Amino acid sequence: MKLLVFLFLITLFISCTTSASTNKHPLDPLTPSEFKLVRSTVQKTYKASSPTLTFQYIGLDEPDKALVLSWESSKTNKTKAATLPPRRALVIARFKKQSLEITVDLSKASIVSTKVYTGHGFPMITFDEQDFVAALPFKYKPFMESVQKRGLNISDVVCSTASVGWYGEIKSKRRLKLQCFYMKGSSNLFARPLEGITVVADLDERKIVQYFDNFNIPVPKAEDTEYVATKQKPPFGPTLMGAAFVQPNGPGFKIDGHSISWTNWKFHVGYDIRAGPMISLASIYDLQQKRYRRVLYRGYISEFFVPYMDPTANWYFKTFLDSGEFGFGQSMVSLEPFADCPPNAAFLDAYFANEDGVPVKIPNAICIFEKYAGDIMWRHTETELHDEEIREVRLDVSLMVRTVSTVGNYDYIIDWEFKPSGSIKMGVGLTGILGLKAGTYTHTDEIKEDIYGTLLADNTIGIYHDHFFTYYLDLDIDGEVNSFVKSKLETVKVKDENIGRKSRWTVVSETAKTEADARINLGLKPSELLVVNPNRKTKQGNKIGYRLLPGPAAHPLLLDDDYPQIRGAFTNYNVWVTPYNKSEKWAAGSYVDRSRGDDTIAVWSTRDREIEEKDIVLWYVMGFHHVPSQEDFPVMPTLSGGFELRPTNFFESNPVLKASSPKPLQWPNCTSQH
Amino acid sequence: MKLLVFLFLITLFISCTTSASTNKHPLDPLTPSEFKLVRSTVQKTYKASSPTLTFQYIGLDEPDKALVLSWESSKTNKTKAATLPPRRALVIARFKKQSLEITVDLSKASIVSTKVYTGHGFPMITFDEQDFVAALPFKYKPFMESVQKRGLNISDVVCSTASVGWYGEIKSKRRLKLQCFYMKGSSNLFARPLEGITVVADLDERKIVQYFDNFNIPVPKAEDTEYVATKQKPPFGPTLMGAAFVQPNGPGFKIDGHSISWTNWKFHVGYDIRAGPMISLASIYDLQQKRYRRVLYRGYISEFFVPYMDPTANWYFKTFLDSGEFGFGQSMVSLEPFADCPPNAAFLDAYFANEDGVPVKIPNAICIFEKYAGDIMWRHTETELHDEEIREVRLDVSLMVRTVSTVGNYDYIIDWEFKPSGSIKMGVGLTGILGLKAGTYTHTDEIKEDIYGTLLADNTIGIYHDHFFTYYLDLDIDGEVNSFVKSKLETVKVKDENIGRKSRWTVVSETAKTEADARINLGLKPSELLVVNPNRKTKQGNKIGYRLLPGPAAHPLLLDDDYPQIRGAFTNYNVWVTPYNKSEKWAAGSYVDRSRGDDTIAVWSTRDREIEEKDIVLWYVMGFHHVPSQEDFPVMPTLSGGFELRPTNFFESNPVLKASSPKPLQWPNCTSQH
Repeated sequence: MKLLVFLFLITLFISCTTSASTNKHPLDPLTPSEFKLVRSTVQKTYKASSPTLTFQYIGLDEPDKALVLSWESSKTNKTKAATLPPRRALVIARFKKQSLEITVDLSKASIVSTKVYTGHGFPMITFDEQDFVAALPFKYKPFMESVQKRGLNISDVVCSTASVGWYGEIKSKRRLKLQCFYMKGSSNLFARPLEGITVVADLDERKIVQYFDNFNIPVPKAEDTEYVATKQKPPFGPTLMGAAFVQPNGPGFKIDGHSISWTNWKFHVGYDIRAGPMISLASIYDLQQKRYRRVLYRGYISEFFVPYMDPTANWYFKTFLDSGEFGFGQSMVSLEPFADCPPNAAFLDAYFANEDGVPVKIPNAICIFEKYAGDIMWRHTETELHDEEIREVRLDVSLMVRTVSTVGNYDYIIDWEFKPSGSIKMGVGLTGILGLKAGTYTHTDEIKEDIYGTLLADNTIGIYHDHFFTYYLDLDIDGEVNSFVKSKLETVKVKDENIGRKSRWTVVSETAKTEADARINLGLKPSELLVVNPNRKTKQGNKIGYRLLPGPAAHPLLLDDDYPQIRGAFTNYNVWVTPYNKSEKWAAGSYVDRSRGDDTIAVWSTRDREIEEKDIVLWYVMGFHHVPSQEDFPVMPTLSGGFELRPTNFFESNPVLKASSPKPLQWPNCTSQH
Repeated sequence: MKLLVFLFLITLFISCTTSASTNKHPLDPLTPSEFKLVRSTVQKTYKASSPTLTFQYIGLDEPDKALVLSWESSKTNKTKAATLPPRRALVIARFKKQSLEITVDLSKASIVSTKVYTGHGFPMITFDEQDFVAALPFKYKPFMESVQKRGLNISDVVCSTASVGWYGEIKSKRRLKLQCFYMKGSSNLFARPLEGITVVADLDERKIVQYFDNFNIPVPKAEDTEYVATKQKPPFGPTLMGAAFVQPNGPGFKIDGHSISWTNWKFHVGYDIRAGPMISLASIYDLQQKRYRRVLYRGYISEFFVPYMDPTANWYFKTFLDSGEFGFGQSMVSLEPFADCPPNAAFLDAYFANEDGVPVKIPNAICIFEKYAGDIMWRHTETELHDEEIREVRLDVSLMVRTVSTVGNYDYIIDWEFKPSGSIKMGVGLTGILGLKAGTYTHTDEIKEDIYGTLLADNTIGIYHDHFFTYYLDLDIDGEVNSFVKSKLETVKVKDENIGRKSRWTVVSETAKTEADARINLGLKPSELLVVNPNRKTKQGNKIGYRLLPGPAAHPLLLDDDYPQIRGAFTNYNVWVTPYNKSEKWAAGSYVDRSRGDDTIAVWSTRDREIEEKDIVLWYVMGFHHVPSQEDFPVMPTLSGGFELRPTNFFESNPVLKASSPKPLQWPNCTSQH
């Protein structure tokens, strides 16, 4: 169809400019050639002899913030030539059962430093080792027998990996637990677990070290589990009408490498195998000051915590830390044009390195599009005038940056939304397949004890669980030196015999001095939470700032001293503020697989450092308690949540006062389509 | 432009079908001819002699629910001819300083009953009487002198009305307070109050009864207050790119009179001069059961509460109940195509009767459009398969019903969003002009005492205030007989020496027996709130229900015994549940102007009626504490909030499993455009 062609052209065009770009950015993710360079450089030292070195993580060794900022300022002000900071890669490798931290200088193609990590926990688990151990059961006799005993066809069985967590054992080994599923008759393997079987594989030994076949529950039937369109039977529906959406003049944004500019915003979209998308150096243009003003130095989701609530032998350990264990960036999937992203989207690819250091491409990993949702930026109808009626309305458009990470059964939609008004909205969408358990029940009447979830279909239980998303938000409100302000709303009694009014509320602001002052559980007291620049004030004298408008707030329900909660202690508060520290990137710690919670933000912040008039980082925890319902089966309609960072006395006045609504256009001149 | 023409054609086409419709619905709002009939019928009895009778309210006298439901079922099942319930109008009139409730039978053109209301409070204030009293100061010598004294030109002054509330006085009269503004040099009159002047007018006497000129603060300057595009000076921006959006096959919804059908939804959009838009008989088609199943019998915003926090003489009384005092439907304004609503919107007009009973038209009062925001309905990428990768994604589209009510300075955007998945999302947007007070300050350093707000510009204070929206939601989950269930999430200790896990959470459900059990302040305990049909269960035995996913929760900060809070006591809880009672429509009471809080839901529900297995109504209070910021001046970027009603074991499984993503289309064949 013409439209498709046309749109693909837009997309291609953008992709071209992308790849063609020569404007390097110090926070650009590593390129395929850089991965190759890292690989060859490291392998020069660590011969490809057995035992081979495995690359658990390769990513940009983030340059010092000072260097990045001076690069940007000289680039912006053209005072002097913008010199890029030294380009380095950080490698976390396993070699001879040790975790190595290797820093590689990419200009010199040499190893700068090598450190053996001796603390608790292990690096991210690669896809390769997951694939390797997932194949082991099929050469493992006891497993074959279990499958046979169940009357299942081994060629229709697939095994999937789960991290094992830490439950107080003194010595931890790098292990995964395998749970297996049946594929015959349905694509929805997660709906059909071989319940009762748990295989334990050692990642360093690369072999099965434990095997459990605790009980035999039949695999739930394939019927009604299928979600693939071509395999559906009638009746079909609901049916939705199509629409043609075109931007004849192309999109309103520009992509130069990984640098995005759109109307009054500019920012950088990075990528990391662990974090996924990373938004950096987001600045908004101030019409009055005639300059870009920085809002966010760096923002990304630092960690996820997904504990399930089934305490039985085959389930209790399912308390996932999806970012540190499985790599939220590694788990990113290709986005489908016209479905994952609208027709006017542009796409960026992402690259990570596999276990052997070889770059792997995720095509269409990130999409960027202008969202025309019919929202109203601002409006007013003036009805008080005698002779005329004034009506001024501005239609709103925002710029979206979207990725999807599929971690096993779950699909996480991650949106960063930039608004011309200066707001940044972070959105998450939960969809995909639930964590499902096979059971013997077909009706709730049969259930006598707690089944730890909801009976969703015959022999199928959706286990209760939580989702906690911890955002790392290094806000730089018009500069690095910021403070965190709690503006409490407090009732005040009014005493005035002339009037009947007895009360009002007012705002009592309090600047957090140390980390302890900034640990907040939302929903208890009415307050506004702001990050301000104490040294910059508006003409009126208000502190320049941005305000956090929270989304759904959930508090952990596990006991503080329960092992998963010790590891997931970064969820103990909804809000944390820490002084900027380059080494504090990961809320659950750097080595999360089998971690013991000794490197979480809950631990760092016990130092109770000063955060007033410092370069500070805001950590926001958004949470969902998920009680599954039958609608979530066999695939979940998206459940959404989000929060907003909103300029609050950052501008002297409404920054979109002088914006004009984009005019609806006619479609491109037809003749040009022939 | 072709597109414009084309889209207008769509719009016109729809409007035509609308007006042409002969399919009457028992909940249709009164038509212009019906208003005329009501007027003539009433005036036959109440001669147009002095004192004249004034129509404070004319609306549909809502037929008994039983009659409406039997009409609908016979219409749906075609068992017998669907007979419309008797069509009646309710008139609330003022006559000889009394409030009359007159019921008019429209088929007989006769008065059925007349009742004199003797309780506290007065009916809605008409635009006509507001206009009348707003003109009084210009014939009032002391006011003329005050204006002159301030060196202002009387012809550039305009006065606006405010309700006076109730502050404990024994005898209340129908009065309004007038506050006046200066128009010279800026359209933004609300930014330029004649602070210190308050005029009190009596609505029955139709004259000024009190006058205060307490102090003289200069009117803030016109500079930087203008919001009209044509009057802006450069620099302009930010600039947004236009886009062409077309539905060559027309929209996916059908409008028949006020009945809307779209994909798997059907519902009725009504209108009332007091409530504004009313959604009725919302049902969703169940593919498996092959029938429509009712979700919502009737939903609308029952009341608003907007108390300001300035306790001084000229401000303390500003504690508005916008629906009961000013008429949220009367305050609806015409929507601007391509700005208030996207190009693919269809529009409905609304009609109300003025003080003389004459119908007044609000053109384009309601818009209906399909929202293509690039959302994902559901998705999953299956990465566990050896040979293939499965990716299934469904793009989401929703149907929006939008209105805007402008109550003086504030513009309220009200959205009802229907999703194919069965969710209904209620959204509000706050924009327009803040409640502004003139002051002597130009910088916060000069401020020594509490100014009850934020200094937004020179001599301009944005006063702290709240917005509480109380939704009336008569849910009929698959029938009238429903129950309200609190599902509490509770921590459970785990004791099993074989595993390390120490805790989990589970769901403890509790059905509310009486109204007291269902009064809930959100944010305190983790729980899921459901309305279920206790007599209908899924195949799996789960109770069929809908769940409330709350939005921003605010709790009142005024003292319980403060007069405004006594009148606004319906905000004391975020959630209330009452048994259906035709007479309990208005959360703040039927007669809200100068009400004393003796007819609020807080009072009704002290009867603590049984609500288990009854036809129940869910009342949800969404609130905002608003601390103004400089960005909100001179006109506010929209601040949004909302909540969701989500099917929870209402369907046997994902109701959109078999939906297909709408295909992006090419634009209409060009030749047809020549």
